Amino acid sequence: MPILRINMRTRTATTEPTPLAWQTLGGRGLVARILLDRVPATADPLGPRNVLIFAPGLLAGHRLSSVDRISVGGKSPLTHGVKEANAGGRTGWAIARLGYHAILVEDQPDDGSWWVVHASPDRVTFEPADPWLGLGTYEAAERLLDHYGASSQTALALIGPAGERGLRAAGVAHIDQDGVPSRMAARGGLGAVMGSKGLKALVFEPAGRAPLPLADPQTFRQARKTYLRALLDHPQTKIYETYGTAAMVQMCNRLGGLPTRNFSQGQFEHAERISGEALRQHILQRDGQGATAHACMAGCSIRCSNIVPDPQGKPLVSPLEYETIALMGSNLGIDDLDAIARLNAYANDLGLDTIDLGAALGVAAEAGLWRFGQANRALALVQQIYDDTPLGRLLGHGAAQTGRVLGVRRTPAVKGQAISAYDPRAIKGTGVTYATSPQGADHTAGLTIRARVDHLDPTVQGPVSRKAQILMAGYDTLGVCIFAAFGFARAPETIPQLLRGRYGWEVPEDVLERLGLETIRLERAFNRAAGFTRAHDRIPEWMTQEPLPPHNSVFDVPDEVLDSLWADV
Amino acid sequence: MPILRINMRTRTATTEPTPLAWQTLGGRGLVARILLDRVPATADPLGPRNVLIFAPGLLAGHRLSSVDRISVGGKSPLTHGVKEANAGGRTGWAIARLGYHAILVEDQPDDGSWWVVHASPDRVTFEPADPWLGLGTYEAAERLLDHYGASSQTALALIGPAGERGLRAAGVAHIDQDGVPSRMAARGGLGAVMGSKGLKALVFEPAGRAPLPLADPQTFRQARKTYLRALLDHPQTKIYETYGTAAMVQMCNRLGGLPTRNFSQGQFEHAERISGEALRQHILQRDGQGATAHACMAGCSIRCSNIVPDPQGKPLVSPLEYETIALMGSNLGIDDLDAIARLNAYANDLGLDTIDLGAALGVAAEAGLWRFGQANRALALVQQIYDDTPLGRLLGHGAAQTGRVLGVRRTPAVKGQAISAYDPRAIKGTGVTYATSPQGADHTAGLTIRARVDHLDPTVQGPVSRKAQILMAGYDTLGVCIFAAFGFARAPETIPQLLRGRYGWEVPEDVLERLGLETIRLERAFNRAAGFTRAHDRIPEWMTQEPLPPHNSVFDVPDEVLDSLWADV
Repeated sequence: MPILRINMRTRTATTEPTPLAWQTLGGRGLVARILLDRVPATADPLGPRNVLIFAPGLLAGHRLSSVDRISVGGKSPLTHGVKEANAGGRTGWAIARLGYHAILVEDQPDDGSWWVVHASPDRVTFEPADPWLGLGTYEAAERLLDHYGASSQTALALIGPAGERGLRAAGVAHIDQDGVPSRMAARGGLGAVMGSKGLKALVFEPAGRAPLPLADPQTFRQARKTYLRALLDHPQTKIYETYGTAAMVQMCNRLGGLPTRNFSQGQFEHAERISGEALRQHILQRDGQGATAHACMAGCSIRCSNIVPDPQGKPLVSPLEYETIALMGSNLGIDDLDAIARLNAYANDLGLDTIDLGAALGVAAEAGLWRFGQANRALALVQQIYDDTPLGRLLGHGAAQTGRVLGVRRTPAVKGQAISAYDPRAIKGTGVTYATSPQGADHTAGLTIRARVDHLDPTVQGPVSRKAQILMAGYDTLGVCIFAAFGFARAPETIPQLLRGRYGWEVPEDVLERLGLETIRLERAFNRAAGFTRAHDRIPEWMTQEPLPPHNSVFDVPDEVLDSLWADV
Repeated sequence: MPILRINMRTRTATTEPTPLAWQTLGGRGLVARILLDRVPATADPLGPRNVLIFAPGLLAGHRLSSVDRISVGGKSPLTHGVKEANAGGRTGWAIARLGYHAILVEDQPDDGSWWVVHASPDRVTFEPADPWLGLGTYEAAERLLDHYGASSQTALALIGPAGERGLRAAGVAHIDQDGVPSRMAARGGLGAVMGSKGLKALVFEPAGRAPLPLADPQTFRQARKTYLRALLDHPQTKIYETYGTAAMVQMCNRLGGLPTRNFSQGQFEHAERISGEALRQHILQRDGQGATAHACMAGCSIRCSNIVPDPQGKPLVSPLEYETIALMGSNLGIDDLDAIARLNAYANDLGLDTIDLGAALGVAAEAGLWRFGQANRALALVQQIYDDTPLGRLLGHGAAQTGRVLGVRRTPAVKGQAISAYDPRAIKGTGVTYATSPQGADHTAGLTIRARVDHLDPTVQGPVSRKAQILMAGYDTLGVCIFAAFGFARAPETIPQLLRGRYGWEVPEDVLERLGLETIRLERAFNRAAGFTRAHDRIPEWMTQEPLPPHNSVFDVPDEVLDSLWADV
């Protein structure tokens, strides 16, 4: 399959054969490879030399359950390093189905103009974006789908006002099965990169394209069946279907790692009010258009997503996930699911990462701009982002910027990216991931919470994090959702089988680990050239000094462990 | 001479013998050595592990003309690398006369308390800073001098509201001969480091101390005489006495390197209104308490400083220097010396670097917050720093932060520090200095404007910048003012003679270059450990792409030149 190159200066689209070294990579691994090959590591992330990449995973395009994820990538304006953020929704499937190995959005208009790009099997067209400029993602998506006469297969990737304004916590939104633009490739500011290219939205219309060819259909179909059974049989799948990722609230609270009031406590006294059980009741009791067990991608059997209704029963946000509940709930001292859902909806509409924005609001409370728990004040601060005030702009750049400008030493961020919903002092393996991942602080780069270790023991976390990071980099390269991993872990042979069935390649049994390690190797090479050293592989100093209740533990994994983790890579 | 260690957590002061490796260094070189030896390179610059250093130059303490400068140092919260900023005034002389090789301010209060430290020959005392907290530097200095019953030798180093609030463009102010706190160790945010230590001011009372011992008084005195004659004979000395550094306005304008309207032009159509001649007339015509030819240090024979009067003839600011005139004048499209002097006075009172603040205001105009040339709007923006609004805070963090948050790609900064008053596209050797100095963009780290080369030729600048950087690092280690170098350049033998006369050391003839190279070697070692690589030794990308009128040149010194400049160091 070729790659599609979209030049935003000349407004031309060209296809070219995919280089050999790119063909055996997809998703996150391909993003790293393309950045190394095409983007000068010292390039201004918001300048013309950066490239915005859309790369479906290697196994995307077949409606394999939870395996159609899209990786968005580029040099990050938040971390100034390699960046991949992936999302569910329709985009991964649609790009693969359109027959593109990846899409590269290059250069930028020299006249400040804004565009919508529409890609169908016949052609790629550019249309001035003026009618949709300044709109939030919800309204823009609705109008764009209407304008382009969307089919049930149409995919849409777009940015909100945050991306248009170059806010560095801006993500790229993708529509889900319902056409709602709530699947965010949220982290690292890729929405700002999209904005820097004068690109408000990309519409993908794969209707009319035949299914992707299979080199060995029988092997593929058999592996698919085995994988799906393993996935459905896993007890965790049922838990996610029932409670969504919010199930994690109580688990993290028990472990003492639930970010509370700007990471000053690891347990929230009102955790049960924002728990998975509470959210489920919240949705069911309103008996409106809310839903538990909602799928973000066609064919997903886990359905961890949900639709949270407002008091009138109308959809307010979908999905409300654990990380948002933690960063915009307990981390802000807020125990009101309606307020959290509304903060989430605003963030989605602006096109902002809820993790970095939630952490930024926590930092703003620490700075005295508002008081923890006052949900209306938090909402008013988010309103300032809509109003584009200096403070609003600051918050929209995320926690690290906010802490820097407001003078808050207690800022939770690594490589400029906010720490996610697992305090590294209580779940230290994930702390190792935050410190050493080329992506900056990111739980999806290698969450260790399910590892059977003492999460407080600083001596055992290195190998735990390393393994988790390698596996996640592998899954992200395949297009596999983090929760689909429960299935693949029980039927690991199906991964090489699916790749053989799809492409006819001879792949080793440990292909997942090999892809993961190769991906991290490429990412580190890019970061090295961009100026990263071991000095950047650190948890914020204050977290190594300030004990976290209730365990009163600090992050004390030795620097040597962090420095040696990827010494061979 | 011992070092004095001041611990701000325990409020104790102790002296200890100066380590051998520190004894042969002073000023900037000693700052680098201490940082390497005592500060973890990855330390949070505003955390307890950073050390604020006051290090007089090796030749300070003798009232040698223009050789009593004080180096202030620490890990920079602006660049996150090594930082030394030096100033005239009384501090260098007083610390040397008190008999300290250097002063280290360590740790920070754990209760948010604020202190003034008073050092006399007998003892060091700590007093709560409450009566002076929040005061601008002018009022604080006046009240502190009054409170402590200052003598004509009393020195005072203090911060303004900017340093108290941790603003990263905050400097450390020192009083001059008149007791006015206008000699700023301005660059790199050392005022914020001082603030992070809960230290509002340091009072130095050397009265009663005997002159420093001389190993070979005759050699010292003879060299002093030779040096002074060479300095007074140099024609440039007379120019500085007559016009101050403002003489540079017309020179830079002619070269097409005068920053104008956020570095969008290299010539300002009203340059003559803000020139050295205009400033001289401005001062003389008012016939009040203004002055040309004003000395910042006792014994200075150059007297490049001035006192700029307000329309009523009262002192408004002292000194008004070229870099401030450029960054707060032409760079803002402002041609009114009264307005520029007032902006300067506000910056001094807040305790802010005029270069970084001027550049930040230029970036703010670029972002549409005000229009170039509207001096009252610029003053109103600076008022927001007094008012501590989010926008005010942002500006106080300097140009890089301001550009980042406001989304301005055309931001002039290297390693987070604003580019000074010599556009690197027109004076490319100084551009090499900006890119490769361990200090971040800083003209005083190696100005090349007087080198006899074609400043536009990208092929010849490497050696020019290297030589200038080595010499300046050497002078900064000795405590020598940049303008005293005119004298030493004509009588280079006096430098080893003065060191021999003072210390009795056997020093090689090229001791200046050796000290300079050693200093840069130490600084680069610290920066390397702090995470700096060649990727950081770059001029902003947009300056390599956007031609600068009138020469329409870009910064095109090859990356290989930048990468190889210190390859041997």
